[in-house]
Amino acid sequence: MPRTNPERRRALTDAAIGLLVAAGVHGLSHRAVERAAGLPAGTAANYFPGREDLLVATAERVVELHLADARAATEASVAAEPAGRAPRHDGDLHERMTDLLAASLLDAATAHRDRYLAIAELQLEARRRPALAGALAGLATQASDLTAAMHADTGLDVDPAAVPTLVLLYGGALLTLVTGAAPADADTTRHLARAIVHGALALTAPPGR
Amino acid sequence: MPRTNPERRRALTDAAIGLLVAAGVHGLSHRAVERAAGLPAGTAANYFPGREDLLVATAERVVELHLADARAATEASVAAEPAGRAPRHDGDLHERMTDLLAASLLDAATAHRDRYLAIAELQLEARRRPALAGALAGLATQASDLTAAMHADTGLDVDPAAVPTLVLLYGGALLTLVTGAAPADADTTRHLARAIVHGALALTAPPGR
Repeated sequence: MPRTNPERRRALTDAAIGLLVAAGVHGLSHRAVERAAGLPAGTAANYFPGREDLLVATAERVVELHLADARAATEASVAAEPAGRAPRHDGDLHERMTDLLAASLLDAATAHRDRYLAIAELQLEARRRPALAGALAGLATQASDLTAAMHADTGLDVDPAAVPTLVLLYGGALLTLVTGAAPADADTTRHLARAIVHGALALTAPPGR
Repeated sequence: MPRTNPERRRALTDAAIGLLVAAGVHGLSHRAVERAAGLPAGTAANYFPGREDLLVATAERVVELHLADARAATEASVAAEPAGRAPRHDGDLHERMTDLLAASLLDAATAHRDRYLAIAELQLEARRRPALAGALAGLATQASDLTAAMHADTGLDVDPAAVPTLVLLYGGALLTLVTGAAPADADTTRHLARAIVHGALALTAPPGR
């Protein structure tokens, strides 16, 4: 049994994210990942026996990074609220969700653009690899569940019926921003976040606006 | 000067769409496109001198097909309205836009899924090819302008300030639907279309809801 350690595993998957962006799925191989991570030939196979294992592990790494950021941002937002104060009306919730989504979109489309470009490459490759598609679908469900749990933990009272629409519109906007030619700016992401929150949350509220 | 004809050009770009989906950007070559279109070796170079010309022509073909469908759907929607009747209030416009977007999303994510998967492949490749990125940005602007002109022509009184958000959320949702594992259904696309229209159009309306 070869020795493995989590740090090397992370170094390999982080290198894989960079390679997916620089050279596409076709540029991703065990050897290329080892080289990019500065590790000896043969290392990657200890962690990812096949090429598909490497693709799945890279997707898992992006989701792990994404959820860690989402949790940190949500907790910071809650910490900034006056103690004991929960949102009392829809407007409060909409504003907080808009702030969170705007910051998250901006961050994802600028500082962490590579992550989401890498996921987009994997999503397209998954159309040609059913096992990868299954792994990505599982990760999406997990991310969605963890996001809903995080909302509940931190007192963000988002109607669960609105979450799939919220997640789909957010993910779609993110995909469009990261693949776009022009870099995203704060005004654009705020405007988009407001439209997404408004569109997704208003529709599950009682009719009559 | 080699002889060219529009029908062969279309056959080659249509074959390129299929190849992009089946094998990714890496699977696209002059020879592969000729083979898939059942045309003799050397034909493609008469139409597309370089590989990048082939990529750009494929993107142009998708936009052409997309706009033709959008125009047909919009005209059909207008024809179905009682003669001389223009939408009188926001609710009318929202309903008509929701109908149009829902049908368009469903159609694009089912019958024409390959087109939009091909565009997604090209968008990712464009991050690595500045000339392709420039061509795609030009096509996006052209599609956006033609869509706005079509709204005006057909009496859909959409606030021009709302169009970029509408286009981005629609495009993002489409990208997410076509790359997703589960096929889209009519309920999902209608719900999404309603959220997109509501989110994008309500925000440019006067405040005070």
